[in-house]
Amino acid sequence: MKREKLAAIIQERKSLLCVGLDIDLKKLPNGLDALSFNKAIIDATRDLAVAYKPNLAFYECMGKVGWSLFEETVNYIGKEHLIIADAKRGDIGNTSRYYAQTFFETYDCDAVTVAPYMGEDSITPFLGFEDKWAIVLGLTSNKGAQDFQMQDILGEGKLYQSVLRTVAAWGSEENIMFVVGATQADYLKEVRKIVPNHFLLVPGVGAQGGSLEEVLQAGMTNDGGLLINASRSIMYASSGDDFAIAARQEAKKMQLVMSQFLQ
Amino acid sequence: MKREKLAAIIQERKSLLCVGLDIDLKKLPNGLDALSFNKAIIDATRDLAVAYKPNLAFYECMGKVGWSLFEETVNYIGKEHLIIADAKRGDIGNTSRYYAQTFFETYDCDAVTVAPYMGEDSITPFLGFEDKWAIVLGLTSNKGAQDFQMQDILGEGKLYQSVLRTVAAWGSEENIMFVVGATQADYLKEVRKIVPNHFLLVPGVGAQGGSLEEVLQAGMTNDGGLLINASRSIMYASSGDDFAIAARQEAKKMQLVMSQFLQ
Repeated sequence: MKREKLAAIIQERKSLLCVGLDIDLKKLPNGLDALSFNKAIIDATRDLAVAYKPNLAFYECMGKVGWSLFEETVNYIGKEHLIIADAKRGDIGNTSRYYAQTFFETYDCDAVTVAPYMGEDSITPFLGFEDKWAIVLGLTSNKGAQDFQMQDILGEGKLYQSVLRTVAAWGSEENIMFVVGATQADYLKEVRKIVPNHFLLVPGVGAQGGSLEEVLQAGMTNDGGLLINASRSIMYASSGDDFAIAARQEAKKMQLVMSQFLQ
Repeated sequence: MKREKLAAIIQERKSLLCVGLDIDLKKLPNGLDALSFNKAIIDATRDLAVAYKPNLAFYECMGKVGWSLFEETVNYIGKEHLIIADAKRGDIGNTSRYYAQTFFETYDCDAVTVAPYMGEDSITPFLGFEDKWAIVLGLTSNKGAQDFQMQDILGEGKLYQSVLRTVAAWGSEENIMFVVGATQADYLKEVRKIVPNHFLLVPGVGAQGGSLEEVLQAGMTNDGGLLINASRSIMYASSGDDFAIAARQEAKKMQLVMSQFLQ
């Protein structure tokens, strides 16, 4: 998906919402299969979301069945949402090419999350596909982000700042986005000093506790510039038969706040 | 697999060889299917290798067929070799648990490679499985290793040194190994100052050009302490019908050098 189309969808739906599809068999409402559950969540949020983000860990752990579920879920979403394979891949150049092929060709996703530790040749193979995106980990939303991402690099600021600056130079605002956690909303301003115009994928607003308004204030660009992810807080808003209604309510709550920033 | 058993296998076979099973449909000898090829490579090297390392990128890109191939390959290897899922996974704690489950339970691998960028909660979920290993990226063998791993951290040395020191404290020499590339053989001595006794998975000796003798001299411990990986140089030693014989010859060449260090 081109940035232009993503921006148009954002304006049309007045939303920056990305729904994380972290399927968990232990949390399914009574008697429902995983694909029907995913479909119901998608149907309940289609007009409120601009992106969907299945996290591969939850699919892989089911083996082949999980990959079928992933494939059918991606196909069911269709072409009017940005589809993010949250896979956090990355390997030497020769090998990263196969990961890119997996998610951009074998499965027709628009974007893949990528870990930066192995450097340039681990990331550039994801950048050679038309209208496809690498979403590179910058500052993540978990506790462990403190361990390395926040370390001080000589002459470069924190490691995450060095990653943003360095990785941004390998591609463009049309094929690279960054993950920046909302539990670190204060840091969004720092991030915007380095990458003022890149799209940012922002996890950690729902179950992990970041503030939506603060994130929107600190992070938006002219064409949106943010994809705000919520996974568990939407998918598992209710464990009963009303799960889809509850999911829609949660999504609507977030979209209403977003719409105020998208007039 | 317990460290004790791995050490015993190393002594018995006088080998530290890990054969990388990077299957590539474009490189298969005429008319051969991928599973038969993998089985032939395994049969040709069983007595010379102590570990096998399928890299998931090469399997995933085939979709479900690739995951079946991965599963059948892992099953065919059996219990007398350390099986490393080279997957370079890592996510927030809640999610990393599912990746660990994938490779340690859904597929019965002994070890998974893990990327450290997301810190402690992304790695510790891999450490709670009996006789299973997380193999954490330290200093990789690719050009991109220069971009972040070699950056100077205030008061900590290089980033890779900080990673080794910090990650080692989260587990033990019985459940953590590190990836240290052989193209950086000089750095092995630096690595051994920080983790004198951890097993190291060393890629980059074959196609990527590191020196085997230098690596053995700089990196071995009393019980071996190294798994020296070669993938393409063994699997694709010949593109003809003699591919298995050629693979065995390449493996034998490496094992002969290793045997001199394992008397």
